[in-house]
Amino acid sequence: MGRWEPNTEQRFLVAAIELFGEIGFERTTVAAIAQRAGLTARTFFRYFDDKREVLFKGSEQLQQTMVEALARAPLDAAPLEAIGAALATAGEFFNDERRPFARIRYAVVAANPELHERELIKMATLSGALAQALRARGVEEPDASLAAEAGIAVFRIAFAQWVSEAETRGYGEIAVESLARLRKLTAR
Amino acid sequence: MGRWEPNTEQRFLVAAIELFGEIGFERTTVAAIAQRAGLTARTFFRYFDDKREVLFKGSEQLQQTMVEALARAPLDAAPLEAIGAALATAGEFFNDERRPFARIRYAVVAANPELHERELIKMATLSGALAQALRARGVEEPDASLAAEAGIAVFRIAFAQWVSEAETRGYGEIAVESLARLRKLTAR
Repeated sequence: MGRWEPNTEQRFLVAAIELFGEIGFERTTVAAIAQRAGLTARTFFRYFDDKREVLFKGSEQLQQTMVEALARAPLDAAPLEAIGAALATAGEFFNDERRPFARIRYAVVAANPELHERELIKMATLSGALAQALRARGVEEPDASLAAEAGIAVFRIAFAQWVSEAETRGYGEIAVESLARLRKLTAR
Repeated sequence: MGRWEPNTEQRFLVAAIELFGEIGFERTTVAAIAQRAGLTARTFFRYFDDKREVLFKGSEQLQQTMVEALARAPLDAAPLEAIGAALATAGEFFNDERRPFARIRYAVVAANPELHERELIKMATLSGALAQALRARGVEEPDASLAAEAGIAVFRIAFAQWVSEAETRGYGEIAVESLARLRKLTAR
């Protein structure tokens, strides 16, 4: 295949996730991913370090999207409102096109301890980035970290719901509802 | 040393944490821990799988303490009140005697990615156990998981504060204050 094929990465992603879903993460080889994609393993390694990388490729982009949304929130917005803006924006990232991929990914990560660990690290990194963005808005510690961690709690619960089988609502909508749920749970 | 020495485990713990603080986790060997404790490496391995285990020995006990406190909370207590009871009880576990150990442990874990990962897994396990205990009280999903995750957020922020240099208040007190802080942050 041509070096400049525009959707090469996407083809690897689709092929990999199909195989993870069909025969499991462990048994899927890079050779099989490349074959399914109609590309070569050599090309695969121009886009990904390994097959694990396929599952975490979008992490930085998601984090950047959320941090930017948080920074754009009105300056007088309360910390959790700014977090809410970041969560709502994650809905642009987790769109309906991505949901079938996300469902398989979620199952694969849950079933593999090593991937689960990496997912936890990703979440801790995202939490740290959101706390940092809150501090940049003048929110002091420990409030910045507490609001960021609460945001991650909402993020995770909303994500689990978004990928559940019967769910049809968009991620942003579920996240906003989950945040309202947290507000209700923490209200005296 | 005698096989039935009652405080053998404690002696290993103290020796290990002293060495971690003095020369770092990486450079501390089991042989050095045993020597410092006046015991043998062979005895060390009757108590711990490896030097990493020294840092995570109390995890199950902490989790059990918190889950039991949650289960003991009045049946009409709201989910976050029950979580609050579990957090307050963690103060019995994290007592003043344990604080110097906890301070070194915190620094060691923060500086070592592998230990940091294991700490994240420990927190995720604790969160799952608290959510399970809430479900056993009749709290439905996603509220049970959301309340448990919010509780873990408070737990972590309170812990970071408890081990900070100038802090003199007990863990339970800080946790209760952090929970109140979360309630304020999430209030409309």
